[in-house]
Amino acid sequence: MPATQGLRVLLIDDGAHRVHLISEELARQGCEVVGVIEQATLIHDCVLRLQPDVVIVDAESPTRDTLENLATLSARMPRPVVVFAEDADQTPMRRAIQAGVSAYVVAGLQTQRLAPVLHVAIARFEQDRALRDELNKAQEQLASRKHIERAKGILMSEMGLDEDKAYQRLRKLAMDRGETLVQVAQRVIDAHDLLRPG
Amino acid sequence: MPATQGLRVLLIDDGAHRVHLISEELARQGCEVVGVIEQATLIHDCVLRLQPDVVIVDAESPTRDTLENLATLSARMPRPVVVFAEDADQTPMRRAIQAGVSAYVVAGLQTQRLAPVLHVAIARFEQDRALRDELNKAQEQLASRKHIERAKGILMSEMGLDEDKAYQRLRKLAMDRGETLVQVAQRVIDAHDLLRPG
Repeated sequence: MPATQGLRVLLIDDGAHRVHLISEELARQGCEVVGVIEQATLIHDCVLRLQPDVVIVDAESPTRDTLENLATLSARMPRPVVVFAEDADQTPMRRAIQAGVSAYVVAGLQTQRLAPVLHVAIARFEQDRALRDELNKAQEQLASRKHIERAKGILMSEMGLDEDKAYQRLRKLAMDRGETLVQVAQRVIDAHDLLRPG
Repeated sequence: MPATQGLRVLLIDDGAHRVHLISEELARQGCEVVGVIEQATLIHDCVLRLQPDVVIVDAESPTRDTLENLATLSARMPRPVVVFAEDADQTPMRRAIQAGVSAYVVAGLQTQRLAPVLHVAIARFEQDRALRDELNKAQEQLASRKHIERAKGILMSEMGLDEDKAYQRLRKLAMDRGETLVQVAQRVIDAHDLLRPG
């Protein structure tokens, strides 16, 4: 379980100007505030450079620009993100959740609640990441099988082989080149697409 | 976007005894409280019978029994579940998130925050469900392909067919019976396992 102690936190002031309160409470809890920024466009670069464990966004209502930058962060370098907002409007709330935010807290910035909010966000983030990893793995396996099937079909029609022979041919190509079956299948597909455009 | 107005809510009093406060605020927001229960073991049956849109659990610290029942609910009949807890201990918090809870709010039961907490939980639930649906679909497709491969292998070794012929045989069986390829593959595997135990 993550201790609050030692947690590296990046703070983003998205217009609510309460980051000093958050910052003080984080220091009291033994967290390290690794940076405080005001430009949402810097989020990804700062996460890359400062490697925080958690990102906290303090906003009246998170701007579209901020949410877009959080979505980019989530796609490229996912981190647990907590958004504190004052506005209960459902539009930014839904956008934030779509952007991969782990906790969206409306009118709930009380310093004594900061630690449990961070812990819930981290637990949620880890669960979500495990689910997405599983999905990526399943989709990759499916794509691999589809590539192999397609490459086999190309060898069958181009070289007049039956399915069995086409598969053996793929396997031999893989062994000869020290590549995986999927890599060789991709080569066959690429070569085919290159030679027969359209 | 879901309006709070008209939302059907099932309340579970897991020992914190503040459900009357929650209930009053829900009524004020135009929600319908479809039931209030104290036994966690009844959660699944009540959701089945009362068809709430959201389940709210009010707890000092959710008991292991309650969390197990929430996990069962999440597996069999998923609904957005909000847990209000007073205890900031990370063990029940992590268990609750593993049990599929959409929002876990520590020391945050303020009536004015109820509506946004419900909205965030519903948005989170929908996102989570979409991701799980996608994962299930990918895993089913993979399993189907694996079944077809295995059935093909059985036909090849049992009937001395090559891969191509084995596949044609499966396709013919499926057409003759008006079943899918996967259903026929499963029959072939079942028959094989039945005739050759161990």
